[in-house]
Amino acid sequence: MTLQFDKPGTGAEVEEGAVLTPRFGADGLVACIAVDAHDGAVLMLAHMNAVSLRRTIETGEAWYWSRSRGELWHKGATSGQIQRVVEMRVDCDQDALLIRVDVGGDGGCCHTGRRSCFYRAVTFDEGSGARLVPIGT
Amino acid sequence: MTLQFDKPGTGAEVEEGAVLTPRFGADGLVACIAVDAHDGAVLMLAHMNAVSLRRTIETGEAWYWSRSRGELWHKGATSGQIQRVVEMRVDCDQDALLIRVDVGGDGGCCHTGRRSCFYRAVTFDEGSGARLVPIGT
Repeated sequence: MTLQFDKPGTGAEVEEGAVLTPRFGADGLVACIAVDAHDGAVLMLAHMNAVSLRRTIETGEAWYWSRSRGELWHKGATSGQIQRVVEMRVDCDQDALLIRVDVGGDGGCCHTGRRSCFYRAVTFDEGSGARLVPIGT
Repeated sequence: MTLQFDKPGTGAEVEEGAVLTPRFGADGLVACIAVDAHDGAVLMLAHMNAVSLRRTIETGEAWYWSRSRGELWHKGATSGQIQRVVEMRVDCDQDALLIRVDVGGDGGCCHTGRRSCFYRAVTFDEGSGARLVPIGT
């Protein structure tokens, strides 16, 4: 039996119910935050469509929809940085997911070679505007 | 002087540069993850347009764009749950933000009364499909 997602019901059903009814956007996607299951560090933000979400749930490994390549994306299939899903959570209105993952390979996530995609902080002053400063991740 | 955002440059400039050039989507929005600055817990995922991002940077408090209401949203203006931005980060391709926040009021975030919007875990078995189970947040 293939996992199917029902359409969202009433607000109360979506927020307090026990059924996963993802609220996919007009583009067919929901955002998914991946955090490291070991220390909670935010690794990346990506998107899932119904097919990738189904595969993620059924296989226990993160599958995304690559918006830039327009294709299903089994995270780590090339790099070895497979994300094994320890826990998946959904938010109140079911349009965002959070996965706590065990990362395979070298434990990294970002295609630039860093562990996390969030490796720069935004600083601001009136003179120079909004600048980016590298941080350790 | 009002803070302006330049258009994204080359891939290398976006990924390794020191200038914030947010890659707003076709809807004019970037996703923003808010985590509690004290323990790193993921509180919510929301969206910012250029105006709300500018206000967030300039005021140090989180301003979002409410997709459901179609309006600027100063988080906490009604509830008291103001999010003071301790640090803002941007991801590799600058289409996602992460803010570490100090939460005002009762310290909560979700409109359902919970601290975090991610208060349910997804479970799966062949028989009952994808179900949601409350977790402590």
